[in-house]
Parts: sequence; C-alpha cells; structure tokens
Amino acid sequence: MTHRYRTHTCGALRAADIGADVRLSGWVHRVRDHGGVLFIDLRDHYGLTQVVADPDSAAFKVAESVRSEWVIRVDARVRARPEGTVNAELPTGEIELYATEIEVLSAAKELPVPVFGEPDYPEDLRLQYRFLDLRRETLHENIMRRLAVIKSMRRRMEDAGFFEFSTPILTASSPEGARDFLVPSRLHVGKFYALPQAPQIYKQLLMVSGFDRYFQIAPCFRDEDPRADRLPGEFYQLDVEMSFVEQEEIFSTMEPIIRGVFEEFAEGRKVTETFPRIAYDDAIAKYGSDKPDLRNPIEMQDVTEHFRGSGFKVFAGMIEKDPKVRVWAIPAPTGGSRAFCDRMNSWAQGEGQPGLGYIFYRDEEAAGPIGKNIGPERSEAIRMQLGLKSGDAVFFAAGTPSKFYKFAGAARDRIGQELKLIDEDRFALAWIVDFPMYEWNEDEKRIEFSHNPFSMPQGGLAALEAATSDEDLLALKAYQYDIVCNGFEIASGGIRNHLPAAMVKAFSIAGLGPEVVEERFGGLYRAFQYGAPPHGGMAAGVDRMVMLLVDAKNLREVSLFPMNQQAQDLLMGAPGDVDSKQLRELSLRVAVPPKAN
Amino acid sequence: MTHRYRTHTCGALRAADIGADVRLSGWVHRVRDHGGVLFIDLRDHYGLTQVVADPDSAAFKVAESVRSEWVIRVDARVRARPEGTVNAELPTGEIELYATEIEVLSAAKELPVPVFGEPDYPEDLRLQYRFLDLRRETLHENIMRRLAVIKSMRRRMEDAGFFEFSTPILTASSPEGARDFLVPSRLHVGKFYALPQAPQIYKQLLMVSGFDRYFQIAPCFRDEDPRADRLPGEFYQLDVEMSFVEQEEIFSTMEPIIRGVFEEFAEGRKVTETFPRIAYDDAIAKYGSDKPDLRNPIEMQDVTEHFRGSGFKVFAGMIEKDPKVRVWAIPAPTGGSRAFCDRMNSWAQGEGQPGLGYIFYRDEEAAGPIGKNIGPERSEAIRMQLGLKSGDAVFFAAGTPSKFYKFAGAARDRIGQELKLIDEDRFALAWIVDFPMYEWNEDEKRIEFSHNPFSMPQGGLAALEAATSDEDLLALKAYQYDIVCNGFEIASGGIRNHLPAAMVKAFSIAGLGPEVVEERFGGLYRAFQYGAPPHGGMAAGVDRMVMLLVDAKNLREVSLFPMNQQAQDLLMGAPGDVDSKQLRELSLRVAVPPKAN
Repeated sequence: MTHRYRTHTCGALRAADIGADVRLSGWVHRVRDHGGVLFIDLRDHYGLTQVVADPDSAAFKVAESVRSEWVIRVDARVRARPEGTVNAELPTGEIELYATEIEVLSAAKELPVPVFGEPDYPEDLRLQYRFLDLRRETLHENIMRRLAVIKSMRRRMEDAGFFEFSTPILTASSPEGARDFLVPSRLHVGKFYALPQAPQIYKQLLMVSGFDRYFQIAPCFRDEDPRADRLPGEFYQLDVEMSFVEQEEIFSTMEPIIRGVFEEFAEGRKVTETFPRIAYDDAIAKYGSDKPDLRNPIEMQDVTEHFRGSGFKVFAGMIEKDPKVRVWAIPAPTGGSRAFCDRMNSWAQGEGQPGLGYIFYRDEEAAGPIGKNIGPERSEAIRMQLGLKSGDAVFFAAGTPSKFYKFAGAARDRIGQELKLIDEDRFALAWIVDFPMYEWNEDEKRIEFSHNPFSMPQGGLAALEAATSDEDLLALKAYQYDIVCNGFEIASGGIRNHLPAAMVKAFSIAGLGPEVVEERFGGLYRAFQYGAPPHGGMAAGVDRMVMLLVDAKNLREVSLFPMNQQAQDLLMGAPGDVDSKQLRELSLRVAVPPKAN
Repeated sequence: MTHRYRTHTCGALRAADIGADVRLSGWVHRVRDHGGVLFIDLRDHYGLTQVVADPDSAAFKVAESVRSEWVIRVDARVRARPEGTVNAELPTGEIELYATEIEVLSAAKELPVPVFGEPDYPEDLRLQYRFLDLRRETLHENIMRRLAVIKSMRRRMEDAGFFEFSTPILTASSPEGARDFLVPSRLHVGKFYALPQAPQIYKQLLMVSGFDRYFQIAPCFRDEDPRADRLPGEFYQLDVEMSFVEQEEIFSTMEPIIRGVFEEFAEGRKVTETFPRIAYDDAIAKYGSDKPDLRNPIEMQDVTEHFRGSGFKVFAGMIEKDPKVRVWAIPAPTGGSRAFCDRMNSWAQGEGQPGLGYIFYRDEEAAGPIGKNIGPERSEAIRMQLGLKSGDAVFFAAGTPSKFYKFAGAARDRIGQELKLIDEDRFALAWIVDFPMYEWNEDEKRIEFSHNPFSMPQGGLAALEAATSDEDLLALKAYQYDIVCNGFEIASGGIRNHLPAAMVKAFSIAGLGPEVVEERFGGLYRAFQYGAPPHGGMAAGVDRMVMLLVDAKNLREVSLFPMNQQAQDLLMGAPGDVDSKQLRELSLRVAVPPKAN
C-alpha cells in the first residue's frame, strides 16, 4: 500500500473487492451512530463509500472525532454489507469498509452551508461559500454535465472539420450593442482596451485570413444591468464561422451538431429530428414571438375578415378605420369553459390590456359576449377555420400587429401552460429565418439595423439599391437566422456582408456614414478591401443550452463561480478596492458621483 | 454542380480526378503569363491548385483582370499537367484546371504586405495587416500547428482522467506577483475587477470543491512592461491541478503528457525519454541556472581545493579570507586554443566581468596564465577531475556562488554555442525539483517567498516550526518544481499548502501577518478551513512550447492577433479612446500625469 492517500476512489469498490485491504480518502459526508457503531459515508468526486468503525477498531477513537466535511484518509478491509443493508442505488452499495486506521487530513469548522441533504439556503451565502455549494450533489453534477456538453460540442465541431481558435480577450470595443467592460491602459494614458462582447470581428478576420472553418468555446463579456435571465459579467458561446458557404450549408452543418448535443444529453426526452424553418414573419403571425415555444401546439390565425362589418362593433370599427388593423385568433383547445376564459381575461387585464375577448364552444353553441355579438354564423365560420370542437375556446387580439403581437404571444404561452398543452418532455427546435434587415425606431423616427449590422441583405447590394422607400427597406430580409428551443433563442447567426461597397450602403441606410464604418469597424472594413471570402456563421449560447439540458431554473446553477445579481463575486471579493498607487499608474481618478436627492 | 462556391477545396484534386468538371474558390496566390497563357495559383486553407486560362477560354478575359489576393470562383475541367511540368512537391501537382468560367468574389487593393514569397516587412505593418500576414504560408502553418498542439494537450489530459473547467476572467486581484489588468466596475463606484494573472486560486478552490482533476487551456493576463520574451497582455497556459496526490504522482501523470506532445510534434527531433530530476541546488552548481539547457553537455564542477594555497594568488587569497568562496570550473571540450580562450575572456569583459581565467591543455602541457601559476601538478589534477583531454580547455569562476552563478551559467551557454557542443535536433527535458521555500532579499534585508507562496514546505508545518535561524529557513525546500526544455522554463508547479495553520506560519516567516493572508487570499484561506484535500499541480506555457516546437524566433510568430511591444493591437486599434459618457458611467476621470522634465 504505497500511495499516500488512496488505492481506490470512493466510487470504485464492488463485491469483487471483498476481503481486500484498501485505502480511501475523501470528505465525511455524514456520520451516524447506530448503537455505538459508527457509520461514515465517505465522499469524493467519484462516489460514496460506507465506512464502519466499532469500538474494537483501532480507528474508533479518531472516527468518533470526525465531523461533516472533514477530509480523512481511511485504511480498511472491504467486507460485504450485512444482509438487508445492501443499497442497490449506490454503485458501492454491496460493500462497506471496516476501518483499521483513520487519519484526519483536514478538519472543517462548523458549516455555514451544509453539503448533506441540500437544504435551501440564501443564495448570497451559498455564493460566498461556493466551494461548499459545489460539493452538493445537484450542483456538482450540473457542472460536470456542463463540461460534458462542452466536450461534446468540441468533438462534434472537430469531427465536422472545424478548428478551435482562441481570439484575443484584451481588445477594442466591439459592436454588439451592449455595454463594454473597459480595461484602462497603463502605457497609453487615457486609452482603454475593451473585453469582447463576442469574437464577431475576430472570427470574420480569421475568415479573411484564410482559415476556412473556425469555432471557439468563447468567453464573452457584457456590462449589462442586472437581468434575471442573464449572468452578469461573462458568459460562454459556441462561436462558429465558415468561408465559401451559403446559409443552407450552415444549416446542414450545424443542425446535426446542435441536435446531436441535445440527443446526447436528453435523457429520454424527445428532440426534434428535422428543425422546421420558420420565416420571421410567420413566427410572429403564428406564435407572436421570434422565439416561439413549439412544444405548445397553438397556432394563431388571422380572422380579420370574420369581424369586418360584424356586430362586434369594437373590432369592426377598428377594421373599418385603418387598413393595417388585423384580428388574430388564439385557439385554446379544451379551454371551453367560462371559468377559464374569465381567468384569461383577468390575466390580460393584469398585463395592462383592456381584456381578452373570446368565444367558447359548447353544446353546439358559441358562448361568450363576442359570440353573441357576431352571431352564430360568423362564430361557426371562425370555429371551422381554426378546426375547433365543442369544449374548445378562441381568444382574440386586434389592432396593428406590430403593437400587439408580443401580447398575443404571451397569451398563447399562457393558454398553453394553463391548459397543459405543452409537452414538457421535449426539446422543440427550429430555425427562425429571414429576419428583417432593418426596423423602424419609433422614438427616433428612423430606420436602424434590426440585428447584426454585419449580415448580408438578401439580394445583396442590388437589393439595397433597389429599395427606394422606407417601406421597401423595412421589407428587406437579411441572411440572418436563429435557432430556438422551447421558447428560448439558443443560437443566432448570419451570412456576412463581405463586400465593402455593400457594407457602406447598408450602413448609410441606417444613417451611418462611411466614416462611422471606418472608425468603429476599421479593422474589418480594411480587411474586406484585400480579398474577403463570402462567409457566415453563428453563435450558440452554451450556458442556456446547459440550463435547458439539466433542467435548471437559474443560470447560476450551471455556472462554476458566478457573480450575484449585483455583479459581485462574493467568494473572491470582486470588484474590490485598489490602492492609490495602482490608480496613479493608470492615470485614473475615481470621481464620486453626485448623490441623488 | 449545385454548390455556390466549390465542389473541392484547393488541396483536394489528384490524377484520379482528371476529366472531371469542378468548381473551386480561393485566393489568387500569383498569376504568371507564359506567352499569352495565364497560370493562376489558386490558394485556400487546404492547398494550392494551378489554374490555366488561354485566349480560347471564355474565362480568359476575367483571368486577365485578376490580381494577387483577389478571391475568385473558378469553374474548370481537371486535366493532367503536360509532361515535365508535374510538381512533385505539391499534393495537387499532377493536375491543373482548365478554366471555363471565373467569377470575382472579392477584389483586393494593392497589398501593403505581400502574401506570396513571404518577404521581410516591418513588424508593425504586418501587425496592422495581420489578416494578410496570417495568409502567409509560414505563419498560417505555425498557427495551425499551435491549434494542433493544444488539441493534443487537451486529448491527453482528458485521456488521463482530467476535466476541463473554465474559471472566471472577471475576478479579483491574484497574487502572482506581476501587475494586474484592472476593470472598473460600473455598479460599484471606485471598485475594480482584475483579470487573472493565472487561475491559481480558482483551481485550488476547485479542489476544495471536490473536483479531483482539473485542467484548462487558460488565458492569463499580466500588465508587464515590454519584454522581448513575453507577449504583452495575454498568454495561455495548460493549467493543471489534482487532489490527493504527492509530488511523485504529478510527475508520473504529467511527464508522459508533456513528452507525448513533444514527440507528436518533434518531426524527427529527439525527445528525452525519462526526464532527469535535478535538484535546484545541483542545477545551479552544475549549470549555473535553474533552467539549464541540457543539450549542452558541459557540467561545471567545484575545484576550490585545487586552488587553496596555490600559486594563483588571486583565488588562493579569496579562498583563505572567506570560507564561502568557491572556485567553479567550466570545462570546454575542444576549446583548447589560445584564440578561443582569449575570445571567451573578451566576451566576459563585455559582460562586465574582470575576465575569465582559463587553462588549456595541449601537447601534454597546461597552457595559459593560470596553468603557469598553479603549476603542472595542480593543472593535471584539475584535468583529471574534469576528464579533459589534450585540445580541451577549462574556465574558472570564483567568489560567492550566489553572486557569480548566473555569469558562470551564461559562460557555460556561450562556450557550448561557440564550440558547437549543442545538439540542435533535440528537446532536452528535465524536472528541476526542491526549490528553496524562501530567499534572501538583499535590498530589504529580509526573508521572502522565493516562488509561489502557496507551496507546501518539505516537512510541512513541523519543518517551519523547527527552523530557528535565517540559515535554517533559507535551507528549507518546498514541494515546488519546474519542467525545463532547451534552456527555457516551460512549466512550473507545486504541492500546495492546504493547511490553514501552516499557511499562516509560512506567511509569518515572510513577514506577512494573518490579516494579510485574510485580506489578500481570503477566499482560499476561508476555503481551507472547511475541509481541504491535499492537492498540487502545475502550469505549462502553451505559447513557449509551441514556439519551441515550430522553431519560431518570436512569440508573435505563434500567436493569432498579438499586440506589439507597446501593448497595442494595431489591427483593431486597441487601446482606444472612449467617450466621456462611458467614463462618467464608470465614475472615472483620466488624470493627465505631470510631464517628466
């Protein structure tokens, strides 16, 4: 027995080892005293092994002294567990160790956060003692699952002919739209590096440098205000770029990889086999969202014509006054009760809406105020169009779709949840395609990029030049796409605009002159002037995918050392004070902001 | 032919493809006009293919217009190269393409840095147009080799049971001794994050969290003043940590991995099979360095006794006066000529030394002034001790070893180079072990940590407590080790001090009270109080290893987008100006430093 600490890990021993003399090290998971005999569950990364010490054992005295989370070394003989005490749920459950010697390698003070049993504790305390929290079974397994997901992504990308590059972290401001973290330069007074919001520019530069197929498990940094669905500070994406491709090849390359990762970790949950492709406009019209939850079978339909000139004067009047007005129907299969429809109506009022009109069908009758107003014929026509049956309901949203679609989408989600129409045991994946190139900024009354300014407009430079009115421009689509899963955007990408002339034109439409292109994206713009290949790619959110796969409620449950919502690392004490010498070296002064009164 | 850009890459076509109609895309590597027939070398990431267009081809007109580094698509028929023009050095050298159609995908302006032929250009220009430089064969291949080395490291680590973790990049100041890059916090006025100089604390916290075997290809950040052998800003290390291990297990785990990586990329160069273990004290005494170049066969020896009471009064007097004085001999096989010995003497004077005494042996005689002074018997005894022959020489360094060992080491290097004793076709690897725990700070007349303050002293707390004098303390060794290769330190590590009491004691010896431990390393110190496993690890320099493997002269030749020596990214324009709104949000003001006068 030459190893100082262990001959086996705590997950290794089996019935075949009975009779062997072994040495294990690990943490005391818990200690039980059964009539003077001590049972210690010894835990390490690999598993749990039961150790027994009775008063006859030389190890008994030390065994009596150990407490939860002490680190000990145990010399022992492996023996079969007595009949009736075999634990079939534990891989080591057939055996136990009879301890002959125990050495305390490291004691533990009283625990501020227990490891055994995983009771709920305040999150800030758990973050401060993250090293204890990370020992808890659930979190420990989530983290290991995360590593396995990343390893799987990496393997699949490499198998598809991609190479992993590491792009710089100390760089210039990147144009992703969020706030950069800045890093003051010591050697260049008053100048700052920025941490990349994404490696967007660098991956495009790699394509211009001739490296055909890039990927990276990339750290990204955004100094955003606290949001429940984002980790403050840093997050990871699977970042991908390819040269000499069109959109279709990115889909055919990446879809098997993303599906493969989901399937590998789905643990019996169904994964979409062929991702449907849903045009952005259709996604808005059918689901009221560009990241629809496709586990929800509800599809909305336009039912404007049924209300035109009808007895429901509110809708009929709106339709008459404004040709842009539409009425959308949100079918609610099995929702055909007044109680449910009223509950939805109250929910809508809680969301700041005047209400949510409905018809419900029962006993060959269309009930509810709207049904009464438009009469049985129109009610029946709506029922037929939507394929509803007796016992079902339909809700209506009316107005200018751009203003109500989000609410309609939220109502669709809510109805799906309330009526339990959502199959929780599924990963419903889809491509959302044909995103608009531009959108209307109502506040500033101007046209702006709706997504990534680097995307190629469909039809290229010619299409940009042919679009003469705002309406034409807002109708332009980009080679820009997302992957959605269960109501989350999990990836986003595009074919890039690699032609300097088209880039300048695209920016000028958004009101940004060539000097802005040169100033803000000079490195890339310059590169495009020296032979740029057509290229495109995407980025998938690693944290989000892992969260879906392990069914976590919170991104902090799939991250190793996350900051809290105030962007503080409570374990390391970051951000922290720095001494005045450091600030002097950086030629910086902290200006105390005026107090709000 | 449905693919928009290519049916094959530029490295794919072979004689078997003759007669096929193909489509390729890539960069125009060069164009030659041979009597009205145009030859275009078309290049992509995968290789080079020769395209031919003659005046009969519909593609001729476009072919005439293209210039170096334009990106084009070529439709063509594959044909055999005419006899005598087959290029055996090119994988596609048996074939050429007869172009039927050429499309310009992207033109290029006149090149500031040519790609073809790789002529020397000023480095700042190459960095500004890094995307062109990266297309050049040598740099492109260095980068791909770098990626392959990292992939190999990753695979070997995973095969050895390690998992790759990503530790935070926005964190607190880390105690590696260099200057941190700071990141101002927007939400917490006057407080700063720091970028990690290494993931040292986090990897130890991972061990305390129970994750047994960690590795990471880790970005590290140090705000150091420009140094020729360091990249400014960021660099990468293969970072490793293991629990429940002693030093020996780290050696037996990591040596095959490091050796394996070297062997995989050695391309015929020899790699040390079993790394010798050289105690720090022995390395200093034999090689005058703790990172000796072991390709150099010269080993120094102590020859003090031969000079005691000898006729060479300078050395004899020094020895008599001070018992700490030693005379070291640096043997120089084949260096036995006056011309060589005088050249070395001049070199030593150029290094600020009074000179470099020597004896050279020829025709059964010990020549040179020292030989004359000490006489033939002592000269012969020295020759015998060192195993020298006629035609060899020996140089001497005398004084207090701590003051002259570095010079002696430099002389050893110089002699080895001058006499061509160094086998350039080898990677000579070794462990340097038993580093001193503490060293003497002569300026401040006090004891300080010589390396990592987190290393476990050999003998543990008991050894710290038993050491009562400065002499005892300076004799203490740590479980601290390096791997060296060809004169470079390529890895460094240690068994960590995981016991709070030993940590406090070790720091107190270095004059740092428990409040310093708590303030500077609070996260780790706190963690050690809740059950810490014995653990240790190392970190290997990825950039340095790749540089050795590809035989590059400069770290920028193995890095993707390096900064220049002034820590500027000339391609992206970092560091750059930020607008006053950003500074206001961070509550910062730039203080213009007083001008030096």
